[in-house]
Amino acid sequence: MNYLRLAMAQINPVVGDLEGNKKKILHYLRLAKDKRADFVTFPELCVCGYPPEDLLLNSSFVEDNVKILQQIQETIDSSVVCVGFADKGDDCKVYNAAALLRQGKLKGTYRKIHLPNYGVFDEKRHFYPGTYCCLLELGPIVAGITICEDIWYPEVIQQLSRQGAHLIFNISASPHHEGKGRLRERMIKELAKENHVFLAYTNLVGGQDELVFDGQSLVVDAEGNLLARGKSFEEELLIIDLAINDLIHAQQFSHEYQAKKSKAKHYPLQRISLPFSPKEEQNPILFYKPPRLSPLAEVYGALVLGVRDYVQKNGFHKVAIGLSGGIDSALVAVLAVDALGQENVVGVIMPSQFSSSETQEDARHLADNLKIKHLNLSIDGLYQGYVKTLEEVFENYKPDVTEENLQARIRGNLLMALSNKFGWLVLTTGNKSETSVGYCTLYGDTAGGFAVIKDVPKTLVYHLVRYLNKKAGYDLIPQSIIDRAPSAELAPDQKDQDMLPPYPLLDAILKRYVEKDESFSQIVAAGYEPGIVKKVITMVDRNEYKRRQSPPGIKITPRAFGKDRRMPITNRYWRNNIHSR
Amino acid sequence: MNYLRLAMAQINPVVGDLEGNKKKILHYLRLAKDKRADFVTFPELCVCGYPPEDLLLNSSFVEDNVKILQQIQETIDSSVVCVGFADKGDDCKVYNAAALLRQGKLKGTYRKIHLPNYGVFDEKRHFYPGTYCCLLELGPIVAGITICEDIWYPEVIQQLSRQGAHLIFNISASPHHEGKGRLRERMIKELAKENHVFLAYTNLVGGQDELVFDGQSLVVDAEGNLLARGKSFEEELLIIDLAINDLIHAQQFSHEYQAKKSKAKHYPLQRISLPFSPKEEQNPILFYKPPRLSPLAEVYGALVLGVRDYVQKNGFHKVAIGLSGGIDSALVAVLAVDALGQENVVGVIMPSQFSSSETQEDARHLADNLKIKHLNLSIDGLYQGYVKTLEEVFENYKPDVTEENLQARIRGNLLMALSNKFGWLVLTTGNKSETSVGYCTLYGDTAGGFAVIKDVPKTLVYHLVRYLNKKAGYDLIPQSIIDRAPSAELAPDQKDQDMLPPYPLLDAILKRYVEKDESFSQIVAAGYEPGIVKKVITMVDRNEYKRRQSPPGIKITPRAFGKDRRMPITNRYWRNNIHSR
Repeated sequence: MNYLRLAMAQINPVVGDLEGNKKKILHYLRLAKDKRADFVTFPELCVCGYPPEDLLLNSSFVEDNVKILQQIQETIDSSVVCVGFADKGDDCKVYNAAALLRQGKLKGTYRKIHLPNYGVFDEKRHFYPGTYCCLLELGPIVAGITICEDIWYPEVIQQLSRQGAHLIFNISASPHHEGKGRLRERMIKELAKENHVFLAYTNLVGGQDELVFDGQSLVVDAEGNLLARGKSFEEELLIIDLAINDLIHAQQFSHEYQAKKSKAKHYPLQRISLPFSPKEEQNPILFYKPPRLSPLAEVYGALVLGVRDYVQKNGFHKVAIGLSGGIDSALVAVLAVDALGQENVVGVIMPSQFSSSETQEDARHLADNLKIKHLNLSIDGLYQGYVKTLEEVFENYKPDVTEENLQARIRGNLLMALSNKFGWLVLTTGNKSETSVGYCTLYGDTAGGFAVIKDVPKTLVYHLVRYLNKKAGYDLIPQSIIDRAPSAELAPDQKDQDMLPPYPLLDAILKRYVEKDESFSQIVAAGYEPGIVKKVITMVDRNEYKRRQSPPGIKITPRAFGKDRRMPITNRYWRNNIHSR
Repeated sequence: MNYLRLAMAQINPVVGDLEGNKKKILHYLRLAKDKRADFVTFPELCVCGYPPEDLLLNSSFVEDNVKILQQIQETIDSSVVCVGFADKGDDCKVYNAAALLRQGKLKGTYRKIHLPNYGVFDEKRHFYPGTYCCLLELGPIVAGITICEDIWYPEVIQQLSRQGAHLIFNISASPHHEGKGRLRERMIKELAKENHVFLAYTNLVGGQDELVFDGQSLVVDAEGNLLARGKSFEEELLIIDLAINDLIHAQQFSHEYQAKKSKAKHYPLQRISLPFSPKEEQNPILFYKPPRLSPLAEVYGALVLGVRDYVQKNGFHKVAIGLSGGIDSALVAVLAVDALGQENVVGVIMPSQFSSSETQEDARHLADNLKIKHLNLSIDGLYQGYVKTLEEVFENYKPDVTEENLQARIRGNLLMALSNKFGWLVLTTGNKSETSVGYCTLYGDTAGGFAVIKDVPKTLVYHLVRYLNKKAGYDLIPQSIIDRAPSAELAPDQKDQDMLPPYPLLDAILKRYVEKDESFSQIVAAGYEPGIVKKVITMVDRNEYKRRQSPPGIKITPRAFGKDRRMPITNRYWRNNIHSR
C-alpha cells in the first residue's frame, strides 16, 4: 500500500523569540526527516509566536519574521512543509499566513480569511483578511490549506471540498479553556464527515501571558473517525500514515459531494502543484491516540503549563508564594511545585495576631509535604508601626477595612522585597470568585507577577485539591485545610461567608453574569434570589478597577477577566440598572 | 432670508448611565426648543455613553438603551433630532447608529459603515458595520447622515455628495490627543471643499477612563470656511443658522460635482423625507467661533477634564496626592485643584532619611500656594521595621533596589490607608517617561486609582509647569522645584540621570519607539547613539508588566499605554532583536 506520511509538529514557541523559534522548528524538521515524513506541519504564526499583539505594528518585527522564514526555507529538501508566519504583502499589509515550503523554495502562501476579533482575539486589529482559497496538488492528492478560525465557518471547507480536496490541513493556535479540546474534536469530526474530507489539525502548545494552548492536534478521516490525537499540553511530533487510496476514495464515492460541486464559489482559488510519488510503507502508522485527560486533569494540566511557561519564558527560575494555611495558596503551591520543581518554590508564612495556630500549622505541614523551603515573617510589629504612624490622622475613626488591608499590604510588600532581593517571581493566590467580587486587597494579596488561579472559581479549587490528594494517594494538602471554613484572617473570627454568599451559590451566579453575559432579570428568572443577585452583580461591576491593576493569570474558562472581558471602569450601568429596581 | 437653524449639543454623558444621559439629552432638547432650532444633533452613542466596551455584550444593556431612546423620542415635537445610540437589528446584531426622531416617532436609522478597530478602538468587536448610506430630505434641503469614522474615508461622503447632499451631518465621539482638534478641523474643511457640501460635526465631551473627548464641534461651508466651532472640553449647545440658498447653491454651481454624479455608488441608499418649511430669520446667527486654545492650554484642559470626570463619575469627591517636592507631584496637585477645587485635594508629605529639607520645604510651600490641606507622615520608623523584619533573611546581602522599593511601597500603603479610611481617591504622579522605562515602583508610587500624567512626557511636564506659573502670574509652583535635578530620593545623592539618559534625549527616543513604532535600526539611523537606544528600548519592553498593573490615566499623545498599545508581557523580541546586535 502507498501512503502519505504526515508529521505534525505541535510546538511551543515564544512570542518574539524569532531565533529561538527557528531553532525549535529546525529541530522538529530534523526529527520529521528522520521519520521520512512527506508533509510536515507547524502551528499558526509559530515563527513569531502567538499572539504577537502590537509587536505586529513594529516596522521591523514582521520583516524579521519573514527573514527567519527564509532561513528555515533554505534548509528544506524533499518534504513539503507548512508553517505559520506573519506575511507582509507588496501593499505593506500584514497577513496571518501559512507558507508552503519545499526544496529551499517558497512554493505558495495561504492567507487566513476569517480573522477572529472577539473574546481574547484582536486579529482584525493586526491583520488584513486573505481573499483566496488555496489548494495544493501533491501528486494524486489534493489538499486544502486553512488557518485556525477558517474551519469554524462552513464556507471555506465546503468550497475546498467541492473543488476536489481530499484532505484539509488546518494550522492553529487555539487557546484552551475547560472542555475546549472535546468541543474542537467533535466539531472537526463533523466537519470532515459533512464535507467528505480528511482533516489534519495542528495546534500550538504552550503558555503565553494569560493564554494556554493545549496541543491535542487531530487527524480525522472523511467519515469523521479519529485516526490520531496529539498529547495535551506537551510538545510532540505526531506521525501518521494516510493511505493514498483512502484519501482519494473519500471524494469519489460521495454522491452528495458531486451534487454540491455545482454550487457557487465564495473565494477565488490559488492552485499549487508539486510532484509527489507516494511511497510504499510496510509498517504504516495508522492510529495514534494517547488517552484523553479527565476534565480535572485537563484544567490542572493547563494551570501547570501556564505557570511554568510564564515563569520561565520571562526569565525567572524561582517563585515565592505567601502560604496562609488556606486552600487557595495550598493549590498554588502544589501547582508551582509540579510546574517548576520543589527546589524552585519558596513558601512564605506571614502570621499576624489574627492568624490561628491551626492555619500556621497547616501552612508548615503543607510546605513539609511539598518539601519546599519556607520562611516565617511575622507582620505584627510592622502592623503596629502603621497603626502608630496613622494614629493621629485616624483619631476618632474606628478600625475598619483599612486596617485589614494594611495587613494584606504588609504581606505584599514583604513578598515583593523577597522578589527584588532574590529575583523570585511572586505568585498570587486569589481565585476567580474573589477576583470577581473584589474580595481581595489591591497591592496586598493581589501583589505579584502572576495570578495563577485567577480564573479558577472557588468551587473548582476544592475539586482540584481533592483530585490532587487522590492522585497523590495521601493528604498532600492537609484535610484540615479543606475542611476549615474559608477566612482572610484579617480581623477576629472573620469568615468569607460573613461577606459573601456561600461559594456554590456565588459561583453559579458569577458563571451566569461573567461568563454567559446574563442580565439581572435573566439570572433572577432562573430562580436566584434578587437581593443576592443584585449584591453579586454590584460587587463585580464596582471592582473592575481592582482587576485592572491585578497581575495576569491563566484563562481556563470560556470567559476570563483580562483581554477576554473588556469592561469600562467608569460604568454606572450597575447603579442605574440594578439599584433602581 | 430663510434659514435652517442647527443646534449641536456637545454633551458629556456617562457610560452606562442611561437614565442620567436621558435627563441630560432632554435638558439640551429643551434648550434647543427655546432657541427654536430646526435640527438638533447629539454625539455618537450618547444614549449609552462612549465607549461602552463589553457592556454591549450584556444581553439587556442594548435593549435598555433602546428603551431610553424611545423615551427620548416621545418628548420630541417639530424639530428633527439626530441622536447616537446602540441599535439592535432584527437579526440581534448590534450597530453603532444614529436615530432620526421627529414628532414622537423614529423616522429613520443610519448605521455606521466604517468601524475603527485600531488604537484605542475595538468597534469590530462590538458592532456589525452598516451597509447603506442615508440621505434625509428636509423640505428643500438634502442632508447626509454619517457617524465619526465614516468621514475619515472618502467614499461615503463622495457618494452622499454625488447623490445630492447639500449638507453632511456627522455625529462623533473622537478621543483627544495633542493637536487632534487642529487635524480634525483641517480634514473636515478639505472634505467639505472637495465634495461641495456643508459639514456639521458634533463631537462628544468628557473623560471616560483613559480617554478625553474634547468637543470642538464644527460647522464648515461648502468652500471649506469655518462657520462655527464649539468650545474645547466643555458642554455646550452650539447654535448656527445656515441660509437655505447657500446650502442649495453649493451643489448647483459645482461643475465637478455634476461630472462626478455618473460614478459608481458604493452603498445602497436609504432616503428619508420629512416636510420642512424654512423660517425667515431677522437676526440669524451666522458665525460662532470661540478662540482656539494654545497647544499647552489644550493639553492642560484635557488633563483637567480627564481627572475631574474620572474622579466624579466614579463617585469620589476628594483626592490624596503624595507630595514629594518634585515637579511631577506638583503638576498633579495643581491639576487636581483646578479639576476638583482646593477643598477636595489633600497633599501627603512622607519624608524619609533620604528626603532633603529643601524638597520637604518645597512640598509645604506648594501646598500653601494651592491652599490645600496637607499631612505629614514620616516613613522612617516603618522603613526600619521592614529592615528589621527582613534582617535575618537578607543577611549577607547588600542594600539595593529592594530597600528603595520598600520606601516607595510604604508611601503607597499610607496613601491607600488614607483612601480606605476617608474615601479619598489616590492620584499617582508618574509621568510617561518614567512609565515607559519602568523607573517607578510597582505597588509603590504606582499605587492609586488614577495616573493623571502617565501619558505626559517629562519634558512636557516642564513646559506645563512653566505655562501654569506664567498663567498664575507668580511662582505657583516654586522655582526651586523646577530648577532642582529630578531625584526619586530613595538612596543617598540619587539623581534620575544616574540611571536614565537626559530627559530631552530619552523623550525623543521614546516618541520614536512608543508612538511611531520605529525600530532600533530606524532610530539609530536617525542619529541616536546605538547604546542608548538599545538601553531605552530594552527598558521599555522589559517593564510591560509594571504598566499592566498600573492605574489608568489620561491619553494625551497619539499613542498612550493601555488599550492604545497592546504588547505581550512575555516577549523576547527585545532580547532577540537588540541584544544580539
